[in-house]
Amino acid sequence: MPTLNREKIGQYISGYVDGEGCFSISIRPRKTLKAGWEVRPSFSVGQNKDRKEILELMKNYFNCGAIRANQGDNTLKFETRNIDEIISKIIPHFEKYPLLSSKFQDFEKFRNVCSLIKDDEHLKEKGILKIIEIVKNMNISGKRNYSPEIIQKSLLR
Amino acid sequence: MPTLNREKIGQYISGYVDGEGCFSISIRPRKTLKAGWEVRPSFSVGQNKDRKEILELMKNYFNCGAIRANQGDNTLKFETRNIDEIISKIIPHFEKYPLLSSKFQDFEKFRNVCSLIKDDEHLKEKGILKIIEIVKNMNISGKRNYSPEIIQKSLLR
Repeated sequence: MPTLNREKIGQYISGYVDGEGCFSISIRPRKTLKAGWEVRPSFSVGQNKDRKEILELMKNYFNCGAIRANQGDNTLKFETRNIDEIISKIIPHFEKYPLLSSKFQDFEKFRNVCSLIKDDEHLKEKGILKIIEIVKNMNISGKRNYSPEIIQKSLLR
Repeated sequence: MPTLNREKIGQYISGYVDGEGCFSISIRPRKTLKAGWEVRPSFSVGQNKDRKEILELMKNYFNCGAIRANQGDNTLKFETRNIDEIISKIIPHFEKYPLLSSKFQDFEKFRNVCSLIKDDEHLKEKGILKIIEIVKNMNISGKRNYSPEIIQKSLLR
């Protein structure tokens, strides 16, 4: 593997993430929380098992997260769900080396939601409604368990 | 979209290709060719239709190839199969901005085969046998129509 400086690896990783990365916000029911819903951010990047090295490069570069096997197929996932790591390590990276495709818009929404989470807004009903307004137009891959409408209805009843 | 210099876009594109790109060599029967088999190189990169802009960025950057709809799903593909473009534009890019994962090995094999094609070795039985030796360990995604063994058998009978 050639040795690149951090600037070059930064661009490379943003390019890789533009293709394979995912910024997501999950909102699930949680009875133990006062607002009734748990809001969790996740930054993840997938890859086939036989090319694990690129995920290890990413884990080293970001100096956070973990690599795990995906359930149900032959892929691995580098992921962090830790809000402090996301705020201090992931978001600054994509501010410095921006995504060049429309996935940039997902990142912007992700950043806005993470900022609300950092301020504990996600623990309040009003904050969750604000988060739903932001994420409901996010480009979601995979199935969405609870529609924005269902969550809104539950909070506004 | 932010404006990046060519050096930065180069790293970004290599990162993107590391995830979504494909270097492939197809070998198919062709009665009109003396050797009986046609060898064709292809460099391609896939993406969902809603993020076409990254493929357009690539087409502009490489200044070759075309963007086409993939048959059977909702994706697009940037692709070039032209040996002169591959030799003069694609290969030099990945020599300057190398892939950081093991996909680099596929690129190396692809480069070796393209060099043989450039020298018209792919039109001779001996050349095709040499090409088969190189590609038979390439990481092939998707189905392979003719196994190396079948092509070898047909040439060596």
